Order: sequence, then C-alpha cells, then structure tokens
Amino acid sequence: MLFAVHMEVGLPTGMDAAERADLLNREKAYSLDLQRAGEWVSIWRITGRYANLSIFDVASNDRLHEILWNLPLFPYMTVEVTPLAQHPSDKALTLE
Amino acid sequence: MLFAVHMEVGLPTGMDAAERADLLNREKAYSLDLQRAGEWVSIWRITGRYANLSIFDVASNDRLHEILWNLPLFPYMTVEVTPLAQHPSDKALTLE
Amino acid sequence: MLFAVHMEVGLPTGMDAAERADLLNREKAYSLDLQRAGEWVSIWRITGRYANLSIFDVASNDRLHEILWNLPLFPYMTVEVTPLAQHPSDKALTLE
Amino acid sequence: MLFAVHMEVGLPTGMDAAERADLLNREKAYSLDLQRAGEWVSIWRITGRYANLSIFDVASNDRLHEILWNLPLFPYMTVEVTPLAQHPSDKALTLE
Amino acid sequence: MLFAVHMEVGLPTGMDAAERADLLNREKAYSLDLQRAGEWVSIWRITGRYANLSIFDVASNDRLHEILWNLPLFPYMTVEVTPLAQHPSDKALTLE
Amino acid sequence: MLFAVHMEVGLPTGMDAAERADLLNREKAYSLDLQRAGEWVSIWRITGRYANLSIFDVASNDRLHEILWNLPLFPYMTVEVTPLAQHPSDKALTLE
Amino acid sequence: MLFAVHMEVGLPTGMDAAERADLLNREKAYSLDLQRAGEWVSIWRITGRYANLSIFDVASNDRLHEILWNLPLFPYMTVEVTPLAQHPSDKALTLE
Amino acid sequence: MLFAVHMEVGLPTGMDAAERADLLNREKAYSLDLQRAGEWVSIWRITGRYANLSIFDVASNDRLHEILWNLPLFPYMTVEVTPLAQHPSDKALTLE
Amino acid sequence: MLFAVHMEVGLPTGMDAAERADLLNREKAYSLDLQRAGEWVSIWRITGRYANLSIFDVASNDRLHEILWNLPLFPYMTVEVTPLAQHPSDKALTLE
Amino acid sequence: MLFAVHMEVGLPTGMDAAERADLLNREKAYSLDLQRAGEWVSIWRITGRYANLSIFDVASNDRLHEILWNLPLFPYMTVEVTPLAQHPSDKALTLE
Repeated sequence: MLFAVHMEVGLPTGMDAAERADLLNREKAYSLDLQRAGEWVSIWRITGRYANLSIFDVASNDRLHEILWNLPLFPYMTVEVTPLAQHPSDKALTLE
Repeated sequence: MLFAVHMEVGLPTGMDAAERADLLNREKAYSLDLQRAGEWVSIWRITGRYANLSIFDVASNDRLHEILWNLPLFPYMTVEVTPLAQHPSDKALTLE
Repeated sequence: MLFAVHMEVGLPTGMDAAERADLLNREKAYSLDLQRAGEWVSIWRITGRYANLSIFDVASNDRLHEILWNLPLFPYMTVEVTPLAQHPSDKALTLE
Repeated sequence: MLFAVHMEVGLPTGMDAAERADLLNREKAYSLDLQRAGEWVSIWRITGRYANLSIFDVASNDRLHEILWNLPLFPYMTVEVTPLAQHPSDKALTLE
Repeated sequence: MLFAVHMEVGLPTGMDAAERADLLNREKAYSLDLQRAGEWVSIWRITGRYANLSIFDVASNDRLHEILWNLPLFPYMTVEVTPLAQHPSDKALTLE
Repeated sequence: MLFAVHMEVGLPTGMDAAERADLLNREKAYSLDLQRAGEWVSIWRITGRYANLSIFDVASNDRLHEILWNLPLFPYMTVEVTPLAQHPSDKALTLE
Repeated sequence: MLFAVHMEVGLPTGMDAAERADLLNREKAYSLDLQRAGEWVSIWRITGRYANLSIFDVASNDRLHEILWNLPLFPYMTVEVTPLAQHPSDKALTLE
Repeated sequence: MLFAVHMEVGLPTGMDAAERADLLNREKAYSLDLQRAGEWVSIWRITGRYANLSIFDVASNDRLHEILWNLPLFPYMTVEVTPLAQHPSDKALTLE
Repeated sequence: MLFAVHMEVGLPTGMDAAERADLLNREKAYSLDLQRAGEWVSIWRITGRYANLSIFDVASNDRLHEILWNLPLFPYMTVEVTPLAQHPSDKALTLE
Repeated sequence: MLFAVHMEVGLPTGMDAAERADLLNREKAYSLDLQRAGEWVSIWRITGRYANLSIFDVASNDRLHEILWNLPLFPYMTVEVTPLAQHPSDKALTLE
C-alpha cells in the first residue's frame, strides 16, 4: 500500500556539531535499512529546502506510523502523509 | 531531471457525457504515451480526490511545461510543480 | 485499517428538486450499504455545515478510493482523507 | 453530545527525559480514566504526526473544556474542537 | 449551552428580486422567532460584510444544527461554529 | 459601539509559577473592573483552547485599543478585532 | 473614528457594457459625495488589482456599515475593515 | 524602478475559440510593444501553470498600474505586485 | 509615489526594560523625523495589535526599502508593502 | 534552465555581531562568485523585507539544490523555488 510522505526538517541552528552529525548518521542508516527492505521505495530532496518527498510501500497505516515515529529526526520534522491508490491511467494496468 | 507534479481536476458537473468520455480517453492515451516514453515515470491517484501525484523525468523545465500544457484536461486542472534533487540518503548512492 | 474522512458538499443552488432528491436517496442507500457491511464505521454531521466526518475501516487505500469515488455526491464534494493508526493510550491496548 | 477533537503536540526537543516520561505517564492515565468513564469515546493516532483525533461524548461544552484544559499535555498542544450532530444517513436511525 | 456562529452570505448577483425579497423576509421571520424563543441570543452585522456573528444558547449540538440547516439562507451561507464555555474571569462567577 | 475580540494566549511553558499566578490575578482583576464598568460586555472561553471571545462596548477605536494594550496578558496574546454593527434582523429593532 | 477598508472587486466578465458603465458611474458619484462630506478620507488604487485601499472617518461602526453596504459595487466586492487608533509616534501628538 | 509581477490567468473553459484567439493575439502584441519599449523587462512562464512571472522597469506605481490594467487579459487575471530594490550583494554594485 | 506599509511588531517578552525603552525611543524619533520630512505621511495603530498601518510618499522603491530597513524595530517586525496608485474616483482628480 | 527563487531570512535577533558580520560577508562573496559565473542571474531585494527574489540559470535541479544548500545563510532561510519556462510572448522568440 503506497503513501507519499513529505518531511520538512527544522534543526535548531545552535545544535552541537557532534550531536548533529550523530543524528544525521543514524537517520541515514535508518533510511537505508528501510530502503533495502523495500518499504521506503523512493526518497527525493525537495530542491532548495531541508525537506524530502518519499514514497512508502507498507502493509498498513500502523506500520507507516511506526516507521515515521522512529525516525531519528522525527522530533525535528513536520510530516504530511498522503495515501495513494492505483491510477486508472497507470501503464501497469495495460497489457504490454 | 525529476519533478513531482500534483494535478487536481475540476470538471464542470454539467459537462456533456460524450464530451467528457472523449476528453478522458484522450487524457489517458496522452498519459500512456508519455509513460511508455519514460518521461512520465509514475502516476498515483490521491485517495479520495479527483487528483493525482506524478513523477516526471524530463530534459528541462520547458519540456515539462510543454507536456503539462498539452494535457487534454489542462484547462480543468490546478497544477503544482516541485523540482526534485537527489537525496544524500538515497540507496542508489551507496555501493551495493 | 482506519481512516478519517471529511466530506464537504457543495450542491448547485439551482439544482432541479427531483434530481436532487434522487441524488440524495442514492447517496443515503449507498452509505447505509457500506455501514451495514462494516466498512463505513461512523458518520457524523459537522454541526452547521453541509459536511460530515466519517470513519472508514477498509482493507486498503485502493478500496477506500473506490468507495469514495463512487459516492453519488462525489462530483459535488471536497474530500480530505486522514490515515489513522492505533494510539498508545487507547484503552483497547490495556488488559481489562 | 459528540465532539471531534484534533490535538497536535509540540514538546520542546530539549525537555528533560524524566520530566517527559512523567508527563506522558500522567497523560496516558488521565486519558484511560476518561475512556473507561465513557466520555473519551475514541482516540486514534494521526499517521506520521505527534497528534491524535479523538471523539468525546460529554454533557456540555463546559465539561469538554474542563477535560481538555486539564490534560497534562495541554500547555504543549494545539487543540481544535468540532461539534458533531447526528447524520441523517447514520444507520442507527434505521429500523434494523 | 453557548455557541458563537459566524455566517457569511453569498447570494448570486443575478437572483430575481422578488425571490430575493421573499427569501430575506423568511430569513428575518425565522431569526426573530428563534430570538423570541431565547435560542438565538444575539445577532450582529459584521461591519462591511454580508455576514453576521451570532450567539446561540441551545440544548445540544443536534438542536444547533437543526436551527442552522433550516435557515432559508443556508444554501447560500458559509457557516462556522465555535463552542463556548464559561470563562473563569466572567463576572457572573463573582458574588456581587 | 460594539466589537468582537478574539484573544489567543500563548504563555511560555517555562514561566515561573509565582510570576504566572500574579499575571493571571492581575488579568482577572483588570477584566472584572471593565466588566463592572460595562465596557467589557461578555467574555467566553473558546472550548478546548487558551483563548476567549469577548464583546466590548466602547466609545471609540482608541478606547478599545487602550483597553486591549493594557491587558496584563497582552504581550502573550494574539488579538483580532471585528467591528460590529446592528443587524436588521435583531429583535431589538422590532416593536414588542 | 478611523478605519482602513480594503475593497476587492470581482465583476462578472460577461456583464453588459451599458449596465457596467452605469454601475461604475453610480459608484464614482457615490464615492465623490462621501469624499466631499469628509467621511471617505482617502482612496487609493492597489497597483495591479481591481481593488482599493480607503480610509474612512465616521461616527460609528453602524455608519461605516451603512456606507459600505450601499456602495453600488457592494454585491461584487470582498471587503475587509480594520479599525485604526491613534499611534503614539504620530507627529500630530507632538507640540510643533 | 523594478517590480516583480505574478499573473495567473483563468479563462472560462467555454470561451468562443475566435474570441479567445483574438484576445491572446492582442495580449501578445501588447506585451511585445512594452518589451520593446523596455518597460516589460522579462516574462517567464511558470512551469505547469497558465501564469507568468514578469519583471517591469517603470517610472512609477501609476505607470505600472496603467500597464497592467490595460492588459487584454486583465479581467481574467489575478495579479500580485512585489516592489523590488537593489540588493547589496548585486554584482552591479561592485567595481569590475 | 505612495505605498501602504503594514508593520507587525514581535518584541521578545523577556527583553531588558532599559533596552526596550531605548529601542522604542529611537524608533519614535526616527519616525517623527521622517514624518516631518514628508516621506512618512501617516501612521495609525491597528486597534488591538502591536502593529501599524502607514502611508509613505517616497521617490523610489529603493528609498522606501532604505527607510524600512533602518527602522530600529526592523529586526522585530514583519513588514508588508503595497504599492498604491491614483484611484479614478479620487476627488483630487475632479475640478472643484 | 531558469528558476525563480524566493529567499526569506530570519536571523536570531541576539546573534553575536562578529558572527553575524562574518556570515554576511561569506554570503555576499558566495553570491558574487555565482553571479560572475553566470548561474545566479539576478538578485533583487524585496522592498521592506529581509528577503530576496533571485533568478538562477543552472544545468539541473541538482545543481540548483547544491547552490542553495551551501548558502552560508541557508540554515536561517525559508526558500521557495519556482521552475520557469520560456513564455510564448517573450520578445526573444520574435525575429528582430
């Protein structure tokens, strides 16, 4: 089941550099694990913003929430979730 | 070059049924051609709305505008374009 | 899987009375069928508005979209979908 | 009398861990008491946000305000209240 | 139980004059009846707008919805309802 | 001359308890004085928010500003003022 | 008593030319009368919009509403009223 | 004196084709004349929208308003004007 | 050339009293100088807010920016600038 | 490929003066380098705001993001990116 998720990050400008580096390393590792597992399908940077647009493919709303809630950056993020459905013009629906 | 495009459709409720069917057929054919050509990478329905979220991979802003401007449904759409960049946590950047 | 859905209705003020009555009858029958089937869990009127807040329990985003797209009033509605997850303070999670 | 209540939580990122744990424990106990008493009918997590959608069944606006004002997390919340009424398509209104 | 209600009116500019006059007469009679009955406590014009701010004192959300839904101008209105509670600084709470 | 005033309070969560109590006591005394004087006609709590809706009856915009500016809580408030006029459906205008 | 009033005009694009000319002539005459009377102190065009910013000096909210309500263009306008007070830095307050 | 102007066009979907073509021809000629005269410095299409971002260099606000007000498409546009000033980092300010 | 400028002030609630008094004194002196020079034509308090609406008459956008940028309160302000043009109904345009 | 970029700066009011001066010097040098290289085509101050409107001409979304992300002021900015395309009325398209 697919979801588009928009995450906007707002780190405090005075955050300790080591704390920040550790946080970002953990965020990256966490994301890569989920990408490898196939649940985090795509991640793109929003050009010019500390933000991303991601596509998730998960079994349920509960699983999606669990993933997002445990993001190391979650306390610094504003997150918006958009549930997606199959589009009738999707070429995956045609016989090719 | 990647772009997320949100299209929200507002067809007049009193539109002639044949005109509407023709319009939607042309829209679908137009979209499928671009999907097959690889420029319209993904199209998902926004759950519960007459709207879609699409990903385009095009050579330029001009090409993206040309594609969108010529959508049969364009006069009935509100379109928002978000330019995307590569995200540093994208697993495509790792050696695997 | 649970979703909160907000539907705001905007019928044209000049709509033919019989057409309107027929539309509303079909809407009501459609809703009751889904309520009896257990997919449309709750429906409340938003006080003072031609709108409702509903809770759906469906198998997928695709099923939710199918339900909403086929509402007789869908062409006259603005719909917003909010995916819900279990709350850790929900008493259903306690042993009682 | 039913109300939908949306609560969005914004805890300071630097809050002391023990203070935070105590706050959340008190919040949970407070919520469970009201759920058991039947006034806090439902509580769902908004997927991907530190927020919930709740349904309350209370005797009056004053009682609802008293409940919300005394939430341990109230000083950290943005709350929106929507009064609900019975919907004419509610199956509870049919003879079954 | 008190509610503040904001009503914004949007009559079509081309409405037939007699139809309009009849509509406004019925609206006024309807409002006066409820004012005399004590449920519609106050009604003020918003300066410079075709809108009003009203205070209602009703037994329930359902009763408030019934009143608003049956306003002759309801199909032409955007309505926002704010439930009110007693304020601790209200002088009605002091012994005087 | 009547005005509706919406005041939303945002006290810092870390405010010293004694300072806070003193501030709220002064606010309440200030409000009660103006209520007794007849300029602060009504004050209601917005259900579920640290906010109020008030009606003022004052001689001028300048007097209203003076009252609001000197609220002990003014530095912590967001205030919105709506000038009110007599509504043609107000029963005070009928001969009864 | 001073008020800033923002008026945004939305005439139907298909309005009959003679009807439109008559409407605008009446609007202009109405405005000039009030300017000469001193109640409509200033009127400026918002650059690039069919809109104006005006300053009114009137005896009461009721008088301001009466003026605005009777504007020939009122049914085609969106109006926002901002009550003004004397500013402590106004040079009119200094002895010069 | 420089201004950024955002113009969003909303032509009625049912407009007569000849009328529309004539309107757009006049719009283009009008724009080209002002571009040649140096007052309309730049015009760019907003990708994916029937809209443009333009830069004007004019002698005054009055001249800018005159230009915009007389656009053949003006009755179908929403226009937003942003006055621009020289930026201290502009390389035109350096000695090169 | 005329501009309407809306300034909203947000001083930190914990600012040192002497620093604040000095800041406000400098702001007032700065404003009075410009009022006497004729560039700052009018300044009004927005009733109930720490904000003002001002009219400026300046030679250029650059001059307006210079004035606003150097306001002692500028770092604490949100400023919105609206360029004004002569209105065709302005009585200054009539022969009287 | 052209982009309009709106940057709004929000420096903390208590920032150390030397740190601030250094930051602004680095920002200016960074901008001038990109202006000389032709990627940062134009930069204008938004009159009355700590903000700019800029035009970039870059090879890709990725390059634009790289430029913006590395702005010394980036952590203090809110950035909005609008992709631009050639406008059919642009005089560069005419034979002159």
